[in-house]
Order: sequence, then structure tokens, then C-alpha cells
Amino acid sequence: MSAPSTSAPVAVSSEMAIAQALAAIVFDANGLVPCVAQQHDSGEVLMMAWMNRDAVSETLRTGKLCYWSRSRQALWRKGETSGHGQTLVDLRIDCDGDTLLALVDQAGVACHTGRHNCFFRALRDEQLTEIAPVLVDPRQMYGA
Amino acid sequence: MSAPSTSAPVAVSSEMAIAQALAAIVFDANGLVPCVAQQHDSGEVLMMAWMNRDAVSETLRTGKLCYWSRSRQALWRKGETSGHGQTLVDLRIDCDGDTLLALVDQAGVACHTGRHNCFFRALRDEQLTEIAPVLVDPRQMYGA
Repeated sequence: MSAPSTSAPVAVSSEMAIAQALAAIVFDANGLVPCVAQQHDSGEVLMMAWMNRDAVSETLRTGKLCYWSRSRQALWRKGETSGHGQTLVDLRIDCDGDTLLALVDQAGVACHTGRHNCFFRALRDEQLTEIAPVLVDPRQMYGA
Repeated sequence: MSAPSTSAPVAVSSEMAIAQALAAIVFDANGLVPCVAQQHDSGEVLMMAWMNRDAVSETLRTGKLCYWSRSRQALWRKGETSGHGQTLVDLRIDCDGDTLLALVDQAGVACHTGRHNCFFRALRDEQLTEIAPVLVDPRQMYGA
């Protein structure tokens, strides 16, 4: 597993604090809340994924980002397979409580395509275009 | 209405380009896709809201951010009531097509509470705490 890129402090919280955070979060009908992951120092928006109560709790308890995989219907400990994990620097809750912003320290790349972030398609000269390079071969990340 | 804070170019697209973008977006069972709005120059994550096909089309056509209000079940032209609108600088589509990232130029404040962004609650000393000040009185924004 690659080391975090900086030595930002890892945020870990007590059970009492976690309970406060959970009470402020409005989970949807499926028990999920969207979480935007942003690189804490560069400001780069890396990805968006979903969390359930257990994923929020585990993230705050361990300081390692844990999401809920809607496709696998299971907790998704980011980096567990790929080695490209995220350390939590700060978890923020929005005004309505229905979106989270995680400031993280991304190890390696955030996107399963091997790009640094997931938002690599945009219109350029009226064409949908890939605007970011593949940095890591996905076969290397997932051992396929 | 306050002027945009910088003179970033406004992104407007042709109908052909808009069709390409729409074809790449995976709308959910309710016909919606989440859109993260980020201030294009500072990197500040301002808010997350939802778009339907019409909101995406209007945003790309006009260069002004238009969302779908789930509570009002209507198009939500950001800033129409408050004057605090968003100009589109770039719209990005993620790897799975199910999340958008809009780089915008925010006029005034993004949050209906009068804060600059919506993510103003976080754990500090084990307490859920408001970490950003109210910059504009919401009664002034909405004429209440």
C-alpha cells in the first residue's frame, strides 16, 4: 500500500462524538448519504460515493474512509483491494444534513480507472473528452 | 444581483454537445443525478444538489447553474430568488456517469443559511460545531 502523500493529522473520533455526527446526518430512504471526497491540501475533488450509518461510524472511528458499495451491497473500505486508500482529515456535514464532505489524504489514485480523480470527462470543442490521464494500470490495482 | 467574483469564461454549449453530455450521464430511478458545485479558482466545495435532464440541459445551454429542487419538484435556477447565482466554468462527468462536478463562479454565498458554503458543521473537540460564519442574513437573501 502506498503511503499517504502528506503527514496531515488523521481524524479519529470517540463514540460520543460519532453519535453526535450520526444524529445530524439525514440518511435517505435506502439508509444512505452521499459523501464527496476532496484532497485536503490541493482542493481536488476526488470522487463521490455513498455511506450508510456503519460506514460513517467506521470512517470516524478509524480515520480511514469506508463507504457503502451499492453494487456489492457491502461496506467498501477504500483501498482494501487497490491499496489506494484515503485517510480522513475532516468530515463535514452540510446545512440539510443530507450530504457529507470528507477532506482526505488520498494514497495513489482515487478512481478505479487509474486516474487521480473520477471527474475526467468534460466538453471540449463541443466533444465529450477525457481530460485526465490514466496514471496507474487498473490491472495492476486490482490484480486482474 | 451581485456580480461574479472573477471574470472566468462562461461555459455554454451547443445542442449537439449537450446531447453528448446527456448520453454519458446515468440518471437514477427518479431521473436525477447529484451535482457537486466547486468554486473554480479557490477549489472550495460549495454545495451538492440534484439535476434532472432539463436542469443539465439548461445549465449547459445558458452557462447558469440550474438544479432540480426535490422539495419543490421544480427547476431551481440558483440565485433566482436570492440573487446568489452560479456561472458555469466547466461541467465534468465522473467515471460511472452518475455524479457531476460543476466548476462554477459563485456570486455571493452558496448556502441558504447565508454561509459561503453548505459544509459548515464538523467535529471539533468531540463536539459537532459550526465552523463557518453567516456572511449574509438569510432574511435579506429571501426577503422574508
